[in-house]
Amino acid sequence: MAIQFSMKAEPHSHEIVTTCVIDAPRDLVFNAFVDAGLVERWWGPKDLRTVVDTLDPWPGGKWRFLLNDSKGNEYAFSGVYHSIQEPERIVQTFENEGKPGRVILDTICFEEMTDRTLITDRTIFQSIADRDAVLEGNREAGTSESMEALSEMIATMRKVTF
Amino acid sequence: MAIQFSMKAEPHSHEIVTTCVIDAPRDLVFNAFVDAGLVERWWGPKDLRTVVDTLDPWPGGKWRFLLNDSKGNEYAFSGVYHSIQEPERIVQTFENEGKPGRVILDTICFEEMTDRTLITDRTIFQSIADRDAVLEGNREAGTSESMEALSEMIATMRKVTF
Repeated sequence: MAIQFSMKAEPHSHEIVTTCVIDAPRDLVFNAFVDAGLVERWWGPKDLRTVVDTLDPWPGGKWRFLLNDSKGNEYAFSGVYHSIQEPERIVQTFENEGKPGRVILDTICFEEMTDRTLITDRTIFQSIADRDAVLEGNREAGTSESMEALSEMIATMRKVTF
Repeated sequence: MAIQFSMKAEPHSHEIVTTCVIDAPRDLVFNAFVDAGLVERWWGPKDLRTVVDTLDPWPGGKWRFLLNDSKGNEYAFSGVYHSIQEPERIVQTFENEGKPGRVILDTICFEEMTDRTLITDRTIFQSIADRDAVLEGNREAGTSESMEALSEMIATMRKVTF
């Protein structure tokens, strides 16, 4: 399924801005970010299995997601929800537990369009070097795969529901 | 007491970098950031009284400090400790509870010099506009006053202790 997805990173900036348009109303899209059973269906690269260990979507609540590969390796990611304005905006931190002490600040906005939703994720790193290291990795492909899976999951849910 | 203090903010950046040299060993300086009784003696502008409501200095632990003015107004600030590497580094978020949803990410490093300590606080904002609004306020004076009070408090402690 083709999706409208973009990732932008200005030179000499702490920020990566990711946008994606999902063909569904905002309430459905927002809910897919805060419902553990739904997160497991779309979050993370497509060749890994996601298990939600913790998802407490209120200010000060924690989240912790595990990614499992086919070789039995497990990678843990976690953070704290700082602000939850349903269905408009989530502010949360993000840590790769394999790299302790490196913290990312994410502000995810959900904007209503005509029966579609624009997601804008502004990701801020502790340093420009940290951001550039992530850009050199496989982040764009992984995020794009997550957004495709989110879009497909919501399309399937809508066929079943309506 | 004169202190070596600087605050730098490059144009078009999400960051403010504050540095300060304190004339005391690193263990003492670090401890002043994580001991509630000590924080009340130096944190915040000098014309306000600081009360520590919460200070749980471990990953995922919360902090909440109250500033009281002479007219009976109270201003609350809070956040989450994300990483505590004693005595080298603290990563924490910072929120002014009067402006909910605006989250700042602070990485505070403590480096040993000869019987002195260099504190470097890298403060990252969600947007360049948020940072510039803070710079237009009284932040530099307030932070400088905090650092002066910290320096004086530690000098007094060392006279008493040694």
